[in-house]
Amino acid sequence: MTEVAIIGLGQIEVQEHWDTSLRHLAWYAIERALDDAHTTHIDALFVGNMLAGQLSNQMHLGALIADFAGLRGIEAVTVEAADASGGLALRQAVLAVRSGQVQTALAVGVEKFTDQTGANLTTALSTSLDADYEAVHGATPAAIGALMMRRYMHEYGLELADFAGFSVNAHANGSKNPLAMFRNQLKAERFTAAPLVATPITLFDAAPTGDGAAAVIVTNRERAMDMVPQPVVVAGSAVANEPLALHDRRDAIWLRAAEQSAAKAMQAAGVTPADIDLAELHDAFTILAALSLEACGFAERGQGWQLARDGEIGPNGRIPISTFGGLKARGNPGGATGLYQVVEVARQLRGQAGDCQIANAQIGLAQNLGSNGATAVTHILKT
Amino acid sequence: MTEVAIIGLGQIEVQEHWDTSLRHLAWYAIERALDDAHTTHIDALFVGNMLAGQLSNQMHLGALIADFAGLRGIEAVTVEAADASGGLALRQAVLAVRSGQVQTALAVGVEKFTDQTGANLTTALSTSLDADYEAVHGATPAAIGALMMRRYMHEYGLELADFAGFSVNAHANGSKNPLAMFRNQLKAERFTAAPLVATPITLFDAAPTGDGAAAVIVTNRERAMDMVPQPVVVAGSAVANEPLALHDRRDAIWLRAAEQSAAKAMQAAGVTPADIDLAELHDAFTILAALSLEACGFAERGQGWQLARDGEIGPNGRIPISTFGGLKARGNPGGATGLYQVVEVARQLRGQAGDCQIANAQIGLAQNLGSNGATAVTHILKT
Repeated sequence: MTEVAIIGLGQIEVQEHWDTSLRHLAWYAIERALDDAHTTHIDALFVGNMLAGQLSNQMHLGALIADFAGLRGIEAVTVEAADASGGLALRQAVLAVRSGQVQTALAVGVEKFTDQTGANLTTALSTSLDADYEAVHGATPAAIGALMMRRYMHEYGLELADFAGFSVNAHANGSKNPLAMFRNQLKAERFTAAPLVATPITLFDAAPTGDGAAAVIVTNRERAMDMVPQPVVVAGSAVANEPLALHDRRDAIWLRAAEQSAAKAMQAAGVTPADIDLAELHDAFTILAALSLEACGFAERGQGWQLARDGEIGPNGRIPISTFGGLKARGNPGGATGLYQVVEVARQLRGQAGDCQIANAQIGLAQNLGSNGATAVTHILKT
Repeated sequence: MTEVAIIGLGQIEVQEHWDTSLRHLAWYAIERALDDAHTTHIDALFVGNMLAGQLSNQMHLGALIADFAGLRGIEAVTVEAADASGGLALRQAVLAVRSGQVQTALAVGVEKFTDQTGANLTTALSTSLDADYEAVHGATPAAIGALMMRRYMHEYGLELADFAGFSVNAHANGSKNPLAMFRNQLKAERFTAAPLVATPITLFDAAPTGDGAAAVIVTNRERAMDMVPQPVVVAGSAVANEPLALHDRRDAIWLRAAEQSAAKAMQAAGVTPADIDLAELHDAFTILAALSLEACGFAERGQGWQLARDGEIGPNGRIPISTFGGLKARGNPGGATGLYQVVEVARQLRGQAGDCQIANAQIGLAQNLGSNGATAVTHILKT
């Protein structure tokens, strides 16, 4: 079995990039990843994107971005699984390298949400739900997340304030990340006073949508050892799904796909949750952070929120999460998010995380969810 | 290197399926492929689709279709490269099996164009062009195809009637395919009298958009030999791209990506154009059929049209193409088209092509183009 390693990382600031086109966003991240890997030779490009067709009138990003980035003639394709598109793009890159058919693959996630605003964006985002049974009735991703959060609060007797620790941690970490969309600290008392988005989810429960791009270059491990001083090994990579529609899932407050993909990835990597030094989880809403901690085995069922309350998700806690701000503070650029997560974990393992560095980080997990958990992709990275 | 073989084929009639939802279309093709392979066990699903987000308000087809088809929990993702999405879905399935990480993979292409009509459909189709430099000025896929055809006619001193043979052959073959969208014969004199779509492309130069779905199941060759009586080997699989915008290509009447992907796939398969018994080419417009014949090496530059004139593309000709009607008569269901092509070639090699059978077919080529050649994916199949 060919082992796969990361040789290049690139990312740009998550922001409202009004003046920058979709293709430029992608190119800036690709350029940085190529520089980081000290190479210009790429055999295959996998583009993770969610909504360019609807928001920017641009499909067929594979050929478009390959050309714009100077990667002419190569194999290129777009990969989509809602907000898990970025993680899936890396997954395809890993499979391609493992196949032996592709030597070096580049996964880039790119999303430009600001080509549309307000209702248009919400409508487009809702196409990631079940169109015939959810979105047609007016459901949005936040509305579905709210149903999950309400049920969780009901089951475990919680109130909004019990989730504050997730956003406080995310903003504390994001304040030290120069590429984060929001770098302000957040106080717990401000969290509970935030305006409602979809009861019980408030503005400070929900990650902001932003424009961004992140890129990861992978090749086989042997080659990587010759190319860069600190290749990061992709020790586990797994994808699972469950029904798109929340009402079709067996359990509304258990992320089954997240559990399955995490278990498979950890098994492949030969690690258990206790071995993992940090995790970038898909905290698009605080409830997803709590449920992801449980699905990955970092907490028992119903106890994920306690890790936030007890400070165990902070940089010095038992399982640091959102170490660069997570979706909540770094920002959530849709189909790019999964690759930001991987870039962040890899930077931690390289010891290049600056003020966000987790001490002695050697094994990290990145988990990217699509549509509140319908798709889950988990990568385990090792030094 | 793991060899990959096809163990299951499924397709439905290409039509205006007004009463059938996107997920049902996909499921009908998947069901047939599972029946054909005598299996229900699939490890990974790759969905080729182009426009469901814009036309049916439905993204995230991987998880949606996996669930609807009863393939719960598995790895699933959508793959997009405009009208080459279907071919690319098979490509990802091949890479996945070759990686050793996935034992059995299912590629399904599905497109439902009739959720919108007329101008909405044309606008959506045009998002496969360069949005900022082509579509914004009103260009459509047919308009770009027309520029290519006009230039080709100018270079080689041709007139519209010189292309008639392509559509006449496609309809003659399609008339024998019960799943074809159009089963009428076409006379050469009717071809030249057809109404214009985009000068010089007429209605009978252009393939009709239709709803459809086609599915292919692949696994490693050894396992395939145990599972089915006639596994068809995927002997070559390659993807290449060139700029999306026609004006950015080095040569407007040479399909460089098609040439590169065909050459790579043939090299991997150890065959030359002379060895190939039939080819399903991307005849969305007759000019693309002519250019594809040249790019694949079946004709010299500027002479592809002569194969149609001389009857060499017919069932008994030197290189039979569009053997089930091609895009022109079988119909062009966007992201499903590339998988219809593969299903058709595989049926030929199995000797299951009915009235469309090419005698002694042992090696076949399927080539799927995106946006008039910006992406090209070529598969070589062998008995």
